[in-house]
Amino acid sequence: MLLATVSPPPGVRSAQPTHAAVSDGGPWVLLDASDVSALVTEAHWRDRASAMLANASAGQRHDAPTLRFHNPLPQPRKVICCGLNYRDHILETGRQIPEFPTLFAKFADTLTGPDSDIHVHSSTRVDWEAELGVIVGAPLHRVDVKRAREGILGYTIANDISMRDWQSRTLQWFQGKAFDRTNPLGPVIVSADAIDPFAGLEVTCHINDEQVQHGNTRDLVFDAAHLISYVSQFTALSAGDLILSGTPGGVGLGMTPQRFLKDGDTVTTTIAGIGSLQNTIRFDTTSTSTESLQERTQS
Amino acid sequence: MLLATVSPPPGVRSAQPTHAAVSDGGPWVLLDASDVSALVTEAHWRDRASAMLANASAGQRHDAPTLRFHNPLPQPRKVICCGLNYRDHILETGRQIPEFPTLFAKFADTLTGPDSDIHVHSSTRVDWEAELGVIVGAPLHRVDVKRAREGILGYTIANDISMRDWQSRTLQWFQGKAFDRTNPLGPVIVSADAIDPFAGLEVTCHINDEQVQHGNTRDLVFDAAHLISYVSQFTALSAGDLILSGTPGGVGLGMTPQRFLKDGDTVTTTIAGIGSLQNTIRFDTTSTSTESLQERTQS
Repeated sequence: MLLATVSPPPGVRSAQPTHAAVSDGGPWVLLDASDVSALVTEAHWRDRASAMLANASAGQRHDAPTLRFHNPLPQPRKVICCGLNYRDHILETGRQIPEFPTLFAKFADTLTGPDSDIHVHSSTRVDWEAELGVIVGAPLHRVDVKRAREGILGYTIANDISMRDWQSRTLQWFQGKAFDRTNPLGPVIVSADAIDPFAGLEVTCHINDEQVQHGNTRDLVFDAAHLISYVSQFTALSAGDLILSGTPGGVGLGMTPQRFLKDGDTVTTTIAGIGSLQNTIRFDTTSTSTESLQERTQS
Repeated sequence: MLLATVSPPPGVRSAQPTHAAVSDGGPWVLLDASDVSALVTEAHWRDRASAMLANASAGQRHDAPTLRFHNPLPQPRKVICCGLNYRDHILETGRQIPEFPTLFAKFADTLTGPDSDIHVHSSTRVDWEAELGVIVGAPLHRVDVKRAREGILGYTIANDISMRDWQSRTLQWFQGKAFDRTNPLGPVIVSADAIDPFAGLEVTCHINDEQVQHGNTRDLVFDAAHLISYVSQFTALSAGDLILSGTPGGVGLGMTPQRFLKDGDTVTTTIAGIGSLQNTIRFDTTSTSTESLQERTQS
């Protein structure tokens, strides 16, 4: 099953600007819920979505090109991110394989759509981080890995765009990772029965036409189920929460010389079996500069 | 003005288990909203609360001892915490005064009531961090310090109870700071016109009868308005969001030898002009041990 949050096609009247939508790989069927975050809080949503998909008339089936795909999950209660999680990348940088996942939180406001422009202000060191997103499908509290695996709703694509100048100001990464509407997500959520990141999904990131990241989810040190089990030991997870599982090698910060995104660059983030994000970087020329911010906080 | 989230007194019938409540320092008047998080999303809530307070009959006025005070702010959309922020503590540890605030996020689920027991599991290094909590009162996005100051709703008391073993597992502190229901908040919110942390409020923490922390908010490197202005540069804040402003010296991690909380210890966190939190630590004997967690994540 595929899930998404879409605008209805031209000519389809709707009282709401967006709908959750479901597909079996062919045309999409709109559901009543405004988005996937709202959908997954409804009882028996899977059964009803499946029934809608099976029983939709020809006129209720919409081909993907007629739809606009938004951030599928606009309101996760929790977004928890894992750093340093790809074995090949850790080893190539000479680090030890970590014993515990490196975790930090971000807020739902950080997310944006799969083809949205990313407006940058106050930063000159904007970097990319292609990531597998894992969506929780059930209440999970202090669960083992088996129950965590059973509680995964599905997978999507994320890019944890990072303002490295802000990230490196202090020991904690949060402020470089939490700029509003800088982390694209989507375009679809593929249900956990349809793909297996543990067996391996190819993850790539391109800047314009150049491939900069190329990894595989089988190299994750902490796979989706282990991450969820670990997080659930200290905080209860619920349907629609989002885990970002870390990025493979090839980020700009790790290049010699270091390389960062420029105005007009297009970042394409692809995971085999899910699809692609494509986002253009737009530097906001009305930015408050880093210098004046600094003066302000020191004044 | 004081705000709180309370259970109605015995004998007062209500369809809801908790109410936002308002006081001018004397008896409390219950409002329709279920809690302060809900209250501050209502238009003109200040005017209506003031009017309720002015016009309440004798029977609608309740003395504080008849009420049970809960976490006043159960649903902040964002909880953002600042580390390393007390000048005296930074200097005594030989560190430099930081140029930027060290920030991390936590989730609303981490919060608990002002007199709630704190149930600990999976950790043996549980530490205290008395903090001034700052509540945002208006939408604030990329604002300067003056507008940030005008946008402060008020202040409360927090204790950012920290699982130091989890916190030190990785570079990012989040997992040691995010255990559900471990961060007490309350008992009241004092409006920003009534107290001035910039001029100085005494902050203390006692473990049982022993004072372990003693600081003053005038020693904050980044005061409430500067923190809010800084955070608002990257993420939009809204009414009811919570900023925890850091802790003064005297935490257990910094003692020689190090000292951590034991089962049955009572932590009393006091800020002059606001009140006190009093929370008893309860070690959960059915804990999943750190060792078995570790095996689990490595399996």
